[in-house]
Amino acid sequence: MTDFTKTRAQFHIPEGVVYMDGNSLGPLPIAAGERVAKMLSAEWGEQLIRGWNSAGWYVQPRRVGDRIGRLIGAPEGTVVMGDTLSIKVYQALASALELRPDRKVVLSDSGNFPSDLYMAQGLLGSLAQGHVLKVVEPEEVEDAIDETVAAVMLTEVDYRSGRLHDMGRLTKKAREVGALMIWDLAHSAGALPVDLTAVGADFAIGCTYKYLNGGPGAPAFIYVAPQHTEIARPALSGWMGHEAPFAFDLDYRPGRGIERMRCGTPPVIALTALEAALDVWDGVSIEDVRKASVDLGDLFIREVEARCPELTLASPRDGSRRGSQVSFRHEQGYAIMQALIARGVIGDFRAPDIVRFGLTPLYLGRDDVLKAVDILAGIMADRLWDRPEYMRKAAVT
Amino acid sequence: MTDFTKTRAQFHIPEGVVYMDGNSLGPLPIAAGERVAKMLSAEWGEQLIRGWNSAGWYVQPRRVGDRIGRLIGAPEGTVVMGDTLSIKVYQALASALELRPDRKVVLSDSGNFPSDLYMAQGLLGSLAQGHVLKVVEPEEVEDAIDETVAAVMLTEVDYRSGRLHDMGRLTKKAREVGALMIWDLAHSAGALPVDLTAVGADFAIGCTYKYLNGGPGAPAFIYVAPQHTEIARPALSGWMGHEAPFAFDLDYRPGRGIERMRCGTPPVIALTALEAALDVWDGVSIEDVRKASVDLGDLFIREVEARCPELTLASPRDGSRRGSQVSFRHEQGYAIMQALIARGVIGDFRAPDIVRFGLTPLYLGRDDVLKAVDILAGIMADRLWDRPEYMRKAAVT
Repeated sequence: MTDFTKTRAQFHIPEGVVYMDGNSLGPLPIAAGERVAKMLSAEWGEQLIRGWNSAGWYVQPRRVGDRIGRLIGAPEGTVVMGDTLSIKVYQALASALELRPDRKVVLSDSGNFPSDLYMAQGLLGSLAQGHVLKVVEPEEVEDAIDETVAAVMLTEVDYRSGRLHDMGRLTKKAREVGALMIWDLAHSAGALPVDLTAVGADFAIGCTYKYLNGGPGAPAFIYVAPQHTEIARPALSGWMGHEAPFAFDLDYRPGRGIERMRCGTPPVIALTALEAALDVWDGVSIEDVRKASVDLGDLFIREVEARCPELTLASPRDGSRRGSQVSFRHEQGYAIMQALIARGVIGDFRAPDIVRFGLTPLYLGRDDVLKAVDILAGIMADRLWDRPEYMRKAAVT
Repeated sequence: MTDFTKTRAQFHIPEGVVYMDGNSLGPLPIAAGERVAKMLSAEWGEQLIRGWNSAGWYVQPRRVGDRIGRLIGAPEGTVVMGDTLSIKVYQALASALELRPDRKVVLSDSGNFPSDLYMAQGLLGSLAQGHVLKVVEPEEVEDAIDETVAAVMLTEVDYRSGRLHDMGRLTKKAREVGALMIWDLAHSAGALPVDLTAVGADFAIGCTYKYLNGGPGAPAFIYVAPQHTEIARPALSGWMGHEAPFAFDLDYRPGRGIERMRCGTPPVIALTALEAALDVWDGVSIEDVRKASVDLGDLFIREVEARCPELTLASPRDGSRRGSQVSFRHEQGYAIMQALIARGVIGDFRAPDIVRFGLTPLYLGRDDVLKAVDILAGIMADRLWDRPEYMRKAAVT
């Protein structure tokens, strides 16, 4: 049984803050500061260029990838770190399209994170080979998977509502029609159990700054199913993915297995912060995290609905169909969130009218949730959001 | 006049080490440790998601880009940070090819860093539109620039020999025939004066872990000339390059100016280390750095040739045609470098037979160079490299 008082003690949560935005940026794992400081002074400072071997920097993207693999049902040697999620989306989709050269449709949905769609648009624009990006509503995806589709590209958890796609069911359908399945696990990895092997996904990608708490702009990961690793051509073919990076040949030859999905020089400082963040998972069961998160979400929904009837639930009521967040709609959502933040309850806002709350039991408990609802109820009862200082401005979060 | 005792004091060089590998990885700027620690605790730790606004993380890629711009003759608002050099090569080349749709040749040379060639091969393979990557010898480049060429893609400084291309002359030739010019400044930025505006470059890219001392895997930069910023289509079109990232539209619309060359979420921790590293440049003249570097190189060549006749100079003797490194050839180069490193003189080896030495006056003086030559001469005189422990193994640096 996971002891959440122990995990909580490993994070820094500022005094007076109820942090419900781990779905956007996880909080600082206390060990990260010390670990990064040591990497800077003892590794970079003392070992200098030798650190690539002596401090294990060169193998770090694989070592960290394997640790994340254990949280998403990926066997050793099928996950590697690097770049950003957007770049990894591009890499996965470009590889998938080359594996299905006779098909021209990329299927996605309007619940996908926009950057995934943008990267696909950029790729298809470059290819200029008549590919089409077909974006349907989330509930229409299953029916739209047919023999014309080269790749289905979806995010398991809708970033707005937290609505879960059925990974197993959709992947099965894709396989039946010969399409390749790409899963974006941005809101899944570290939030709920994922088993890429069992569902039969072809590619998966994700970021590490949300539920994996790697810090702002932490590196992304990519998974390639074992049957594809030796045949997928990495469109982004950098030297670290070369079969022999230090031979400095003029011609690219893809590296063995997942190594080929590496691209440029890996971000060692950021990966070091992430490694410290992953230590939190020692002795933690993702099933326990999931169960506790659903319980917190159920509690939050129940309390908010009882006390703030002006807010409309935007997330599935059924916890099993919901990721690790709960969203509500209100036309003054932006101002409500500003009022909450001013009182120490940090969630976020997504246009046009969604207030989002992450429910991450690694560092959030029932008392926090009840406190957040108290404050929210006070704001709604007194219309505290209706003040000039909470009005909408250029927001970047 | 730049005071190099002051710059030297800002770096941590381990006791007993002569560091001559800043052309591969610059040493730790002492301020980086403190700056990163503060960013972790006071920004990520305390401000959490709010840091994107309150700590300036969102605008950091532009802010840092402008600082690097000042070292390479790029006006404000034409340089942005992110990703790796390999990714930025891809982005620059893909954009350039779309600006010259009727031409199919990408011209580069065998002195380019292999990753640049690999990325070009990956891109052209994806495009499948009949583009050809033509790789000539460095001295043949000028003659090979003709009306068939869409883009010329070169690294100013040859990573093996330090040989400099004439940026002004080659760019002029490219412009005359209507080709676009892409310069890789990996070994130039922070090493020698570059004036992208004066030479008329169309695109430039570079890394920041060499002469800019940003740390292992530090982020890259990209420059787009003002006449292209509003028309270049970023093939890697992520949400941070969108006109309105937080509108979460389903369709990509490129951002204004250089903003469109942003892609995914920026690497805040790494950019923070880099910002501390860039502080070293306050009060430093790049012309002074260049002059001191050439002097150190001349001294090193003269002393090595006088005392180690077995080594053959692989770099231009004329300092004005050489970057900030000096290379020698020897068939036992690998073992010689291992013997040097074992004695505290850190340079590096590049296959098949090159020993490379960086000459970076920010933290390296004449005494260091003379000490390095003493140690090298001792190794050569006593054939100390001919020992089993210095034999070649799988090396990654």
